[in-house]
Amino acid sequence: MDGSSFNLADRARSLAELWSPAIVARINDHEVKVARIEGEFIWHAHPDTDEAFLVLSGRLRLELRDRAVELGPGDLYVVPRGVEHRPVAPGGCDIAMIELAGTVNTGDVGGERTVEAREWTEAD
Amino acid sequence: MDGSSFNLADRARSLAELWSPAIVARINDHEVKVARIEGEFIWHAHPDTDEAFLVLSGRLRLELRDRAVELGPGDLYVVPRGVEHRPVAPGGCDIAMIELAGTVNTGDVGGERTVEAREWTEAD
Repeated sequence: MDGSSFNLADRARSLAELWSPAIVARINDHEVKVARIEGEFIWHAHPDTDEAFLVLSGRLRLELRDRAVELGPGDLYVVPRGVEHRPVAPGGCDIAMIELAGTVNTGDVGGERTVEAREWTEAD
Repeated sequence: MDGSSFNLADRARSLAELWSPAIVARINDHEVKVARIEGEFIWHAHPDTDEAFLVLSGRLRLELRDRAVELGPGDLYVVPRGVEHRPVAPGGCDIAMIELAGTVNTGDVGGERTVEAREWTEAD
């Protein structure tokens, strides 16, 4: 995947499934993932990594325990490691995430919403 | 800087100086920087880090020794560590970069184009 450039929003838009992140690039020991989301996720934290959210289209509300952060297209927010958060996107949203490789979407909570990130492919 | 969200393109647009990266966020041991560039940079490589380029506005040509990569708004490309490259933006371009903290803009080459990245501030 290092051989060519690509458009982040296009890659997110190509995904068929909601809440199923696809890895589109690597930066050292970090991964860049894209995902389409809609509705509410679960509360969770990542004890071992910060998690950057970049909104590609739509609106994302990152709920934290003491407040919420509202993000629109082109907005970036980094959830510090260990901080509980819940992504919410009532109207649907395409996002990119940057975090340590191997980070699980449900963090320290697990459960039925857990999905292993996969490589983005041309078939998406 | 971790306390609030912000728009990457707005932060880049606020910069007064060309070729002078400002740090806008940290993700673990990596930094997210924004910069305004125009014209040609020098050939260089970063032996210790991959370097991701995300175009925020305008067009960027990343010259590599064997080819060139053309990037427009929303396009991402990761220059692998150790790979010589030269950013060129004849019409001007706003970019974000993600790389290991402390990475110098001129990499292994140094010289008069070297600028230490600084923190982005509200005064920008």
